Amino acid sequence: MKAYVVKGGFGLDHVVQVDRPIPEPGPGQALVRLKALSLNSRDIGVIEGFYNPERTEGLIPVSDGVGEIVALGEGAARFKLGDRVCGIFTQSWIDGEPTPANWTSTLGSPLDGLLAEYAVLPEEGLVRVPDHLSDAEAATLPCAAVTAWHAIVEEGQVRAGDTVVVQGTGGVSMFALQFAKLHGARVIVTSGSSEKLERALAMGADHGIHYTEKADWENAVLAYTQGRGADHIVDVGGAATLNRSIAALRVGGRISIVGLLSGAAVEDFAIVPAILKKARLQAINVGSRAMFESMNRAIGLNGLRPAIDSVFPFAEAVDALRRLKTGSNFGKICITL
Amino acid sequence: MKAYVVKGGFGLDHVVQVDRPIPEPGPGQALVRLKALSLNSRDIGVIEGFYNPERTEGLIPVSDGVGEIVALGEGAARFKLGDRVCGIFTQSWIDGEPTPANWTSTLGSPLDGLLAEYAVLPEEGLVRVPDHLSDAEAATLPCAAVTAWHAIVEEGQVRAGDTVVVQGTGGVSMFALQFAKLHGARVIVTSGSSEKLERALAMGADHGIHYTEKADWENAVLAYTQGRGADHIVDVGGAATLNRSIAALRVGGRISIVGLLSGAAVEDFAIVPAILKKARLQAINVGSRAMFESMNRAIGLNGLRPAIDSVFPFAEAVDALRRLKTGSNFGKICITL
Amino acid sequence: MKAYVVKGGFGLDHVVQVDRPIPEPGPGQALVRLKALSLNSRDIGVIEGFYNPERTEGLIPVSDGVGEIVALGEGAARFKLGDRVCGIFTQSWIDGEPTPANWTSTLGSPLDGLLAEYAVLPEEGLVRVPDHLSDAEAATLPCAAVTAWHAIVEEGQVRAGDTVVVQGTGGVSMFALQFAKLHGARVIVTSGSSEKLERALAMGADHGIHYTEKADWENAVLAYTQGRGADHIVDVGGAATLNRSIAALRVGGRISIVGLLSGAAVEDFAIVPAILKKARLQAINVGSRAMFESMNRAIGLNGLRPAIDSVFPFAEAVDALRRLKTGSNFGKICITL
Amino acid sequence: MKAYVVKGGFGLDHVVQVDRPIPEPGPGQALVRLKALSLNSRDIGVIEGFYNPERTEGLIPVSDGVGEIVALGEGAARFKLGDRVCGIFTQSWIDGEPTPANWTSTLGSPLDGLLAEYAVLPEEGLVRVPDHLSDAEAATLPCAAVTAWHAIVEEGQVRAGDTVVVQGTGGVSMFALQFAKLHGARVIVTSGSSEKLERALAMGADHGIHYTEKADWENAVLAYTQGRGADHIVDVGGAATLNRSIAALRVGGRISIVGLLSGAAVEDFAIVPAILKKARLQAINVGSRAMFESMNRAIGLNGLRPAIDSVFPFAEAVDALRRLKTGSNFGKICITL
Repeated sequence: MKAYVVKGGFGLDHVVQVDRPIPEPGPGQALVRLKALSLNSRDIGVIEGFYNPERTEGLIPVSDGVGEIVALGEGAARFKLGDRVCGIFTQSWIDGEPTPANWTSTLGSPLDGLLAEYAVLPEEGLVRVPDHLSDAEAATLPCAAVTAWHAIVEEGQVRAGDTVVVQGTGGVSMFALQFAKLHGARVIVTSGSSEKLERALAMGADHGIHYTEKADWENAVLAYTQGRGADHIVDVGGAATLNRSIAALRVGGRISIVGLLSGAAVEDFAIVPAILKKARLQAINVGSRAMFESMNRAIGLNGLRPAIDSVFPFAEAVDALRRLKTGSNFGKICITL
Repeated sequence: MKAYVVKGGFGLDHVVQVDRPIPEPGPGQALVRLKALSLNSRDIGVIEGFYNPERTEGLIPVSDGVGEIVALGEGAARFKLGDRVCGIFTQSWIDGEPTPANWTSTLGSPLDGLLAEYAVLPEEGLVRVPDHLSDAEAATLPCAAVTAWHAIVEEGQVRAGDTVVVQGTGGVSMFALQFAKLHGARVIVTSGSSEKLERALAMGADHGIHYTEKADWENAVLAYTQGRGADHIVDVGGAATLNRSIAALRVGGRISIVGLLSGAAVEDFAIVPAILKKARLQAINVGSRAMFESMNRAIGLNGLRPAIDSVFPFAEAVDALRRLKTGSNFGKICITL
Repeated sequence: MKAYVVKGGFGLDHVVQVDRPIPEPGPGQALVRLKALSLNSRDIGVIEGFYNPERTEGLIPVSDGVGEIVALGEGAARFKLGDRVCGIFTQSWIDGEPTPANWTSTLGSPLDGLLAEYAVLPEEGLVRVPDHLSDAEAATLPCAAVTAWHAIVEEGQVRAGDTVVVQGTGGVSMFALQFAKLHGARVIVTSGSSEKLERALAMGADHGIHYTEKADWENAVLAYTQGRGADHIVDVGGAATLNRSIAALRVGGRISIVGLLSGAAVEDFAIVPAILKKARLQAINVGSRAMFESMNRAIGLNGLRPAIDSVFPFAEAVDALRRLKTGSNFGKICITL
Repeated sequence: MKAYVVKGGFGLDHVVQVDRPIPEPGPGQALVRLKALSLNSRDIGVIEGFYNPERTEGLIPVSDGVGEIVALGEGAARFKLGDRVCGIFTQSWIDGEPTPANWTSTLGSPLDGLLAEYAVLPEEGLVRVPDHLSDAEAATLPCAAVTAWHAIVEEGQVRAGDTVVVQGTGGVSMFALQFAKLHGARVIVTSGSSEKLERALAMGADHGIHYTEKADWENAVLAYTQGRGADHIVDVGGAATLNRSIAALRVGGRISIVGLLSGAAVEDFAIVPAILKKARLQAINVGSRAMFESMNRAIGLNGLRPAIDSVFPFAEAVDALRRLKTGSNFGKICITL
């Protein structure tokens, strides 16, 4: 089978196609023929050596993919041949709270990812996907969608009438927008691009804030909510956004910390405003299989469709990664086989 | 001012119009000029002497109404003249868990209700209503809508992808349908009337079950959910429905007990099925002011409109009560002044 | 090895000792040499043919036991030889909400139980037990203690200052007493025996009610709580107790339905009192492995010791079952090997 | 009556005794004759001009006190003459989530505090206190105890078997220790003083860490918990402690942010560790009346006694404030009248 691996160094130039034998499923495992993949900024981080660099040589990157079950190992009984499934991001996190051991079971590092024609995964690490989704659409779910579902629904318990702020128009933010709207909330999107704000409004956002025109977007949130502040903010920025997110919050509101696009350390994180807001900050790290299945029911039932930026053929996988690195995408970048 | 009171006995024949002086607001109170009312089956129960019969002679019945603030007592500062407000059903239940004392502060018994041209209420017992609603629509909120919100959102925490069963097409059930849809759930409605099922489907229900044709509607729910059962059931029937509701539930599901239309005592309530379903039963008794305000935000933001069965003029208030007693209504019966 | 099976009919007379080969652990399994067992009324029910009667012929009964791991199958890595472990009651319920499939994985029916010298169980179905407990004490945990922990802590979220009522002095009730005291609650015990009430008070109960002297024990609860009612009631009686439990509850209180000692169907379950109490009823069916582990941390940390009624040698296992059937036990009846 | 006010500038030198008329209770108010007070570091902050400096001239400082009701205004019915009551810190926060308006109703700034012989407060802003407490003990409850209860019980839902870290031995930390022990948790205390650690162990703490000897106390927590980390950390330090608190946490653990003793801004708050810990950070700002009453039930039922550092007579109130400023206290500093 064809597969991509990181070879001879770090960075996109070191992602090369290789030939490997098709793996065989052991007891309780399934062989999946991949049909589509989607990319996350974490995939770039892995390739560039920021995660587990000592294990990256020879690694198959990319955590998210969908495929068809083509063989089952001994005792595997959760699925039948032909079922269309996604691998779950944290393979061993089934339900409840995660454990440190779960963190070592993530696809695309330290475990091999799915940028290949076939992969073997434990049957416990797979979920069926909603029928109405195309393969590319289904491939977007494991990382970005589950993260957004975890933030908005599982921890956030967003309800109708709430005001939710999503930052930017990347994969997690657009899923957060969709899940918040699905629960009757009002959604404010921030972006540095007028065109992307237009697209977010077309997807159902109620209000857009251009954060290069209004650097103090937190005041725009307060103004739009007549001084009350947002009930829930999905913070993807980290360093540059966290203090502003607290300022934009209502008393008793909640921030989901899901990313660190603008840096991993918040200089001068301010405690007094957090106390005056009685702020609740919840760090989110993708989610469990139970969350994934719960989300799939919601997506299937409501016919929700992910925002796809672009679809590349498998042969152009590195170009797909390059596009992600530019940050110019709106929604998810996919690869089909 | 004109008002209706219960006089000389129990029953609809004893609801008579009288003249009374317009009351004056004391410290912290507001005088409200009523604009519309809505009826609940509890109002009939009060009039027929089933609630606090010893206090019913001379009582102004009907708990739900909307009006305009026309005078404010000393120190009253939550509202200004002209604000359009509803009285909350349980006047002293502001937030958090109720207390037994709260139960003695319900409008329409033991406190005077609103079937009058004017009423004085404490400003703490009033809430602003969403602008987009007509007076008749706004009048439907205090009892039926708050009960449904309490069941579906506050206790039920219904989320996208859930399956919710609502029984019949009365006021609470139609609000429960709307609030569940607002949160991305799938809704099954049961009814004994094909025409009402059609109307419920037109309001957004996903599936209707005719319970006179299929008395074992619980099996129809199991079939429709492919054996999984419903996540949440709003039980308005009481005696005849509770065991069936448990049978229709998924493992780990939840029943909101909101009514007793078919009787107040369940013969042979079966415990084993409840344990095998790990069932959660939550009795609901309208709700707090905080719930009412939270619901109003959701209704306002989403432009939701209550299901109105019919609107009667104030002079025909007794006819409105008679229509409710027939049980043939779909949604709420209102009275306008 | 020696084992007991149900043979040639139902009832304690049909529990007979047989010789069987020591089983061998398959992949992911462990061979456990049993050291102690404890009995639950469900074990009697199984033997008498009330659960899955079609599968009872030849079944090894008794769900609860502790033993030492003496062999591990291929790939089994959660434990090492010599670890002291209990089997979890619902073998496949690991964390989160249960599924219907979990119900078919319970020990002692439909799966073979532990009344034998050895048993093979999946390693995922085992938990380590606190060091300070004797074997007999450790054997009491899987069913009664996990049920009580689930009721009091997981669903009940009992906190310091709460008032908890436990009914009778059986295994679940005595664990519920201990767990409630461990969280700073006040505990009322009901019993038909003055001697048992004395023993419950010695174990930490704050107040005892003799329910044959005071059949209306609900009024005694109201009196003791100065009219407020209990925050939480663990209802083990079913038919005869549920309406009284609701009467004894505070507004907003919670009932855990864990048993049906007095019958499985409540005649005339009364809905109006439940609504006036805004009662929350939660049916409990033992619990998950995550709950078991969480409970073990609490037991270990606090040096808590289960109430043991009596300990029988393996050869007198049927006598142990007979004692349980008399209902005269206080706490758990155990068997040691 | 005698009262202290802040006069002619900021700082302890500007706290002077004055004579004022005894105030009279208006409608719904009560006149309280103060019997004891307790001090919080916020009181120093107010006096030094860090809170609402424009309103501090002439302000009566000190938020926490207990007294006896000696007169009731018109309509006041919650209490009777002679009842012993505390003022609640946030006078208008009764139950549920707070609002921004609640923050302007805090005693000791911007509202007048209780460092006086008498005070008038709305009856809604008072709670009865447990009988077994001395006046000085009861005076410690409104700020420090309610904050700790809010952190440990209301938000923290600490349960038996949890490991809780409290930082230092000030008022909030010692209440947090007591409330955590009351719920069966294991408590680790950090301090820079061996003598204070000894006293904390005597109060029930399970383990002490001397943070000047072990600056990396987070590693000592990890070691003590065998690598698992703490379930809950009450962070009173702010700037210097927050990153360490995250490092000391278990996956899925919770931090209550209650103070900023070492500074109000965290330099380089690190997001990646927070995400890997799936950390939950909850800022705490004292609490509601419902929390206060719930806490009082727990304190009363369990006969819990606050840690008192020292008691000063009213005439030496400024000396009491000076002692607090040194930071050498263990538990609460009180003033009696």
